[in-house]
Amino acid sequence: MSQKTAPSGVSVVALDGEMKEKLHLHDGAPPPAAKCSAMMQKRCRVPEGADVGDYRERFVRAYDRLRDELVADDSCELTDEAKRWVAQMIDYNVPGGEEAYIRFSLGSCIFQACALLLDDIMDDSHTRRDQICWYKKPEVGLTGINDGILLKCHIARLIKKYFREKPYYIDISELWNEIALQTSLGQMLDLISTHNGADNLAKYSIEGYRRIVKYKTSYYSFYLPVACALLLSGAQLDSFSGLRDILVEMGIYFQAQDDYLDCFADPNTIGKIGTDIEDHKCSWLIVQALGHADRNQIEVLHNYYGKKDTNSVSKVKSTYSALDLKDIFSEFEDRAYKHLVTSIEAQQDRAVQEILKSFLKKIHRRKK
Amino acid sequence: MSQKTAPSGVSVVALDGEMKEKLHLHDGAPPPAAKCSAMMQKRCRVPEGADVGDYRERFVRAYDRLRDELVADDSCELTDEAKRWVAQMIDYNVPGGEEAYIRFSLGSCIFQACALLLDDIMDDSHTRRDQICWYKKPEVGLTGINDGILLKCHIARLIKKYFREKPYYIDISELWNEIALQTSLGQMLDLISTHNGADNLAKYSIEGYRRIVKYKTSYYSFYLPVACALLLSGAQLDSFSGLRDILVEMGIYFQAQDDYLDCFADPNTIGKIGTDIEDHKCSWLIVQALGHADRNQIEVLHNYYGKKDTNSVSKVKSTYSALDLKDIFSEFEDRAYKHLVTSIEAQQDRAVQEILKSFLKKIHRRKK
Repeated sequence: MSQKTAPSGVSVVALDGEMKEKLHLHDGAPPPAAKCSAMMQKRCRVPEGADVGDYRERFVRAYDRLRDELVADDSCELTDEAKRWVAQMIDYNVPGGEEAYIRFSLGSCIFQACALLLDDIMDDSHTRRDQICWYKKPEVGLTGINDGILLKCHIARLIKKYFREKPYYIDISELWNEIALQTSLGQMLDLISTHNGADNLAKYSIEGYRRIVKYKTSYYSFYLPVACALLLSGAQLDSFSGLRDILVEMGIYFQAQDDYLDCFADPNTIGKIGTDIEDHKCSWLIVQALGHADRNQIEVLHNYYGKKDTNSVSKVKSTYSALDLKDIFSEFEDRAYKHLVTSIEAQQDRAVQEILKSFLKKIHRRKK
Repeated sequence: MSQKTAPSGVSVVALDGEMKEKLHLHDGAPPPAAKCSAMMQKRCRVPEGADVGDYRERFVRAYDRLRDELVADDSCELTDEAKRWVAQMIDYNVPGGEEAYIRFSLGSCIFQACALLLDDIMDDSHTRRDQICWYKKPEVGLTGINDGILLKCHIARLIKKYFREKPYYIDISELWNEIALQTSLGQMLDLISTHNGADNLAKYSIEGYRRIVKYKTSYYSFYLPVACALLLSGAQLDSFSGLRDILVEMGIYFQAQDDYLDCFADPNTIGKIGTDIEDHKCSWLIVQALGHADRNQIEVLHNYYGKKDTNSVSKVKSTYSALDLKDIFSEFEDRAYKHLVTSIEAQQDRAVQEILKSFLKKIHRRKK
């Protein structure tokens, strides 16, 4: 399992945009006027004459403004050189333009940039988003660690700046802190697991896999943006029983897809050459393979998983094929999808239901 | 300038202990009953029969409890292996026992541990507190970056756990966030400065030096613990005009001492062999040397500063001697001391005055 692609389509902006669409869909048959629905509806009302394009543009502008604010930071008497450094670092690491639009949620693109920047250093990665990793630039190196920390610190500052006077200020601050801690704990679980797995492949298990993904990916990529949006709309998170579990499941489903595509997708389509097998990752595929393999196949996996040479990689891939992992994955996708739909329909709030469904639709059977 | 030793004697615990002593000194002639003094006095009252030893022991116990809490973290379903990892990482990096007593202030020993752990990676350091650096352990490596982040995330969690219901909860959370950002910006200023200085030594200046130390060291090592203590005592930081500047100055004085000792102290006394010259650090000494040197001496410094061989280091040290840097430093110490005493005496609050003086006394003319 690696985290090479940013989960897309799950964000407050998307939520705002989607919400607006959804609520419009319901203009003829309005959803039950639950407290939250009403509040979210109010927030997401489209002004006269505005269309989706306007919204998109507004959010891209907002993103640009945030970027400029980070550079013009007045917490420190930054020298001109320091300002140039911050500007360059943000432009390089925080996705702008269209991707920002898709992912924008408070500082979620900043959080993602920080996590990926540091992950790249820890994983000794070379490229990210078709450019060399920030820390691989000769003038950066390991000092890039501080840039990651800096990005993270800016999130608290943005929250303070924009929400200091709001009734949900404490809740939203605590949410971010909690999820930062969970993400970091998830990263630790992953590192320990990979360390142990390299020692003994048999230590990879589906429970371990789910625990890692839940903490390392689901919370910040799936739960955080929705929870943020709810807080912003004035809702209390306690009122949405089961919501967190649904988004955790969606995150696990998303990561399993990522792992599947790492091995089976066309590199041109996903924009990278997968190396989970070479890197001895605790991928959804290896966990499934171990669960389905016979004694001989397990021996092959133990002997060749995590080796860099093409012969070893081929042997692992052949075993995956012999085990019909493509079919197993396809069944998993169907099951995950159905289970999610059922859980979503059990949600009380209609607006939340709709938005969760639209997220699910975005990722279901995705090819990249 | 490097940050090899932890500033000592500046902490909430120290504040509590010192405060108690100071306030007792004033039993005969009580300080003016300024609002803050009264509140701090109340907080720091020594129970019947208690002595300083009791206080020390209480705080060491409190530290041990915090450590156990971090290990038993329930934000994540930690595996036993993960718990062992966290325990080992904390024991290794966060100073316990006596040093914790001296530095303890909310999470300030954790903050320090996080900063130093990451600094060591960025600086490619080998040892810290007479043991090899955490990231140098074969099972850690660059994954130690995540351990640093984890420590940092725990601070917000501790603040929430212990102060959620207090009126100063928001203020103390914001203080920590602000200082984390400033420290990170200071680190960036230092990295950029060292990069430029390696290019051209003439770029090191006293203004640049002061700016770096202010942000990188003073805020978190000097201002943070005092500001925390004031908030805990129910005071508003706005009421202490000039306090921040005094503590920033004290931090700069402290760092200049550190830089001086790096070159001139007996390695056995300070417990390490200084390498600021070899590492091309923007040290107080090189900045002063550049300011006092003639054309020939500047040429020597340009040619030999930042080189690893003993011959080059000797040439730089000889230049320092020829420039009487020891005397210049001694004069600087006197000036800094007098200036600080004057500023401290201008503080309205008598208790704050006393505690600042006791801090100053602890660091003035220190030999290690």
